[in-house]
Amino acid sequence: MNLFQGNIDRFGGITVHTEKWNLSDSEFQNRLEASLSEWQVNGNRGIWFNVPLHQAGYVPILSKNGFTFHHAKPSYVMMIKWLPKNEPNLLPSYPHTYIGVAGLVVNERNQILVIQEKYHTRPHWKLPGGYADPGEEFGDTARREVLEETGIDTEFVSIVTLRHHHKHLFECSDLYVVCEMKPLSREISVCKHEISHCQWMDIETYKNHPEVSEMNQFVIQAYLDQQICRASVQVHDVLSFNRDCYQKIYCIKSTESVSGS
Amino acid sequence: MNLFQGNIDRFGGITVHTEKWNLSDSEFQNRLEASLSEWQVNGNRGIWFNVPLHQAGYVPILSKNGFTFHHAKPSYVMMIKWLPKNEPNLLPSYPHTYIGVAGLVVNERNQILVIQEKYHTRPHWKLPGGYADPGEEFGDTARREVLEETGIDTEFVSIVTLRHHHKHLFECSDLYVVCEMKPLSREISVCKHEISHCQWMDIETYKNHPEVSEMNQFVIQAYLDQQICRASVQVHDVLSFNRDCYQKIYCIKSTESVSGS
Repeated sequence: MNLFQGNIDRFGGITVHTEKWNLSDSEFQNRLEASLSEWQVNGNRGIWFNVPLHQAGYVPILSKNGFTFHHAKPSYVMMIKWLPKNEPNLLPSYPHTYIGVAGLVVNERNQILVIQEKYHTRPHWKLPGGYADPGEEFGDTARREVLEETGIDTEFVSIVTLRHHHKHLFECSDLYVVCEMKPLSREISVCKHEISHCQWMDIETYKNHPEVSEMNQFVIQAYLDQQICRASVQVHDVLSFNRDCYQKIYCIKSTESVSGS
Repeated sequence: MNLFQGNIDRFGGITVHTEKWNLSDSEFQNRLEASLSEWQVNGNRGIWFNVPLHQAGYVPILSKNGFTFHHAKPSYVMMIKWLPKNEPNLLPSYPHTYIGVAGLVVNERNQILVIQEKYHTRPHWKLPGGYADPGEEFGDTARREVLEETGIDTEFVSIVTLRHHHKHLFECSDLYVVCEMKPLSREISVCKHEISHCQWMDIETYKNHPEVSEMNQFVIQAYLDQQICRASVQVHDVLSFNRDCYQKIYCIKSTESVSGS
């Protein structure tokens, strides 16, 4: 009897990519049963099946054989079965936190770049921003979103605030990161699909504007306070644990020497 | 012909929970085709199908009718189809960032609480911590993990560092948040399943220890630097946009008045 071959991990788990075979549903069913028996005898633990969209017929077969869903991306669903009978399931779950990033773009006249969205529940002036794409660093998301929405090019200066919110879309959490961004251009060119208004506004006007959320008023105050502290949350490179790449790390640094230079 | 009924959202989308009906595969197929025709005529946009594990037989039918996977949780898979032919798919994607939190627990003798894990790729002294549970705030994750791993109860003081890392498990990103925690107890009681060693270590000894990662050396230096800055990243409550709850927001505050009190 042929068995499924998969990638073995250091926790005794096996990951099978069903795409490697072209089996009828009954062939799949038979090979699955034989493989599960073998893995049980061998003491394997977490069994992972990566099923691409075009083989979705295997999903009900896996479900009937005790697999549950783990996560899905547009092109595949990952299903898992934990084999040990006397050990708790220690398999890692999937992320549940959205990362949104906004740019607090402050020009040399102490004006900030603010927008109104085309689709909203109530009119308000907000900071340009949006969700991070996979693999994107905070400053890169802020730069991309500010450029897409307002036409202004910017560069990352520091993190001003982090807001953590729960019970968001699909019962996930949401981390909203406001980055101070330095404008590198001046002429606004608005994204017509998403934005109804965009302008530079005096920071004091914005802070006291009736159509600004309590949260954004807080963000502005935090920005003003950190000027007084002469400290900001800056980015650095740090060697990864495996020493094979550099990673971004954010922490407080004094800005006194910067402002003096 | 009966049609599927679903929840309508403000973007013209419909979410169908298939659990509400008990249909054979062919009944499901017929009702799906009739519903899609109707929704197309009505100008509906994103069509979402929430399919529980025990109805996994509907998954291949949805796939054949042009649905792709959106996300999955252990008990269900969400599939989507974007109906407008001349409009880009604007449906939000699912989170792709893990949140890990560690506790930098510093006692009154300037010692920190450090552990060695039972399962590791190379021996090293690290900070107690782990992944955030759904809906959990940073300080709550740090407190829970420190307590589980070391038996020490703690309370949140501030965020020391944020490390952002990409290409993690399942090609997701990973945000590792180190929180300064104040110990509320003293006696170590180690989790035997996960931890091989746990002790209080002088902060200077830790910083120069050969079995400490470059990243954790950086974290310690950041902690020492913020004492000199007399500022830290503290937590506050801010009213949500819909004014129906308070959310946590983190920003720099001066610690001068605190240390003087």
